[in-house]
Amino acid sequence: MKIRLLVSYEGTDFCGWQRQAREIPSVQETLDTALSTVLRQKIIVSASGRTDAGVHAMGQVCHFDVDLPESHFEKWDLCWALRGVLPPTVAVRKAWVAPDDFHATLSATHKTYRYFLYNNPRPNPFLRRTSHWQRYPVDFAHLQASSSFLLGKHDFKSFQTSGTPVKTTIRTIHEAKWEQKSQNMWQFTITGQGFLKQMVRTIVGTQLKLSKDGRPPEDLATIIAATDRRKAGPSAPPEGLFLWKVFYPRDLDKRCRPL
Amino acid sequence: MKIRLLVSYEGTDFCGWQRQAREIPSVQETLDTALSTVLRQKIIVSASGRTDAGVHAMGQVCHFDVDLPESHFEKWDLCWALRGVLPPTVAVRKAWVAPDDFHATLSATHKTYRYFLYNNPRPNPFLRRTSHWQRYPVDFAHLQASSSFLLGKHDFKSFQTSGTPVKTTIRTIHEAKWEQKSQNMWQFTITGQGFLKQMVRTIVGTQLKLSKDGRPPEDLATIIAATDRRKAGPSAPPEGLFLWKVFYPRDLDKRCRPL
Repeated sequence: MKIRLLVSYEGTDFCGWQRQAREIPSVQETLDTALSTVLRQKIIVSASGRTDAGVHAMGQVCHFDVDLPESHFEKWDLCWALRGVLPPTVAVRKAWVAPDDFHATLSATHKTYRYFLYNNPRPNPFLRRTSHWQRYPVDFAHLQASSSFLLGKHDFKSFQTSGTPVKTTIRTIHEAKWEQKSQNMWQFTITGQGFLKQMVRTIVGTQLKLSKDGRPPEDLATIIAATDRRKAGPSAPPEGLFLWKVFYPRDLDKRCRPL
Repeated sequence: MKIRLLVSYEGTDFCGWQRQAREIPSVQETLDTALSTVLRQKIIVSASGRTDAGVHAMGQVCHFDVDLPESHFEKWDLCWALRGVLPPTVAVRKAWVAPDDFHATLSATHKTYRYFLYNNPRPNPFLRRTSHWQRYPVDFAHLQASSSFLLGKHDFKSFQTSGTPVKTTIRTIHEAKWEQKSQNMWQFTITGQGFLKQMVRTIVGTQLKLSKDGRPPEDLATIIAATDRRKAGPSAPPEGLFLWKVFYPRDLDKRCRPL
């Protein structure tokens, strides 16, 4: 039987989604261990995609196969059982029985990421783990203006961190906007059919640099066209980034039944 | 010269405001060390009051004396210098030159505390440090109804944790209300001329217990009248509690000059 999960995690103390050869735990091994414990068999989950060290997820989606009949889940609540064995930084919010053709990675059609930027001369201890703090006044109109150049189908090679071989660096972006959430908190929302390694953080870091250096928003289009990582700015830090939502074809969603 | 500070801190990883004979650091020693470093002399701060282990402060106020002329502060920003030596869990938001008769503890006229309660069947990893999670549906109309019995001058002995000798357990409460902040987040605001040890947490814990046990809100008045800690409920956990604001006489505020 195939199970689909909706998972939230605070990435601060993890080495990222995937296991690394280090002492810091990964989100995946944390989930694998918790699921293997409550289901009493070896479980390995597959996620919609990896998140880097320190990056959070509001709505990560993953799936796994389990050798148990559906009737096993009638008597107890998998999410609740997991709560007892997961650390407080990881929560399984929802579980479904998924059809055999569902695959968290391969079936995903697009994803939304959000980046939170706290812009205040003074840091805020309560926001330090879940937003990037910028002391200097940020020109958000400039950031919003440069965002429009991201829309559509482009080669985003300039925003890819090297070391990850991919077939193509061409991606389509459906939505890219900056919005003010409260007096000092701003939110960047970007939705696309796929993202390269550190692409969102490098886009945000480049937007901040263009604005700070007094260059016009149009320069973002030039940087995209250059397909050269050296033309872009530094990657913004991970604490502001959230994998917000993963989208699947509607017919596949309909064939997933809440557990 | 006397200096007044406005300080925010996340209390999760501290043993409380005051130093204990343990390995866990206190907020006070963290501030003393940071101030002593940047001011190059031994500094000891006095706060409006102590906060317990795990309790947060949005607006703690403290003062200290420093043997330096005011002109010393014309060239550099004390708050900014502190940022470089304080951990990210503590932020000094504002500093003033205070008149000699200002005392963070003795001059305070009243204080506001807030308690945040996250009421959802599923835990939220991003709220775990700054709110108390309750799985079961909470009857907030009940909590609001019992809050009215707190208003005015009462002997709050029933809500005092033993072990702290105080002259009197009589306190005056000016404001006590529950409000919904978002879909699953509720906030209790209580303002009074002073609070006993663990008083706010024991009030919240008692309100939750009365509601859960199906007892009428009026029973809170009976529990106050009993002046017996055994009649009240358990103390709610510290992660939901914030020392929100400390109030001083207006004339004293006016005589404090921003540094």
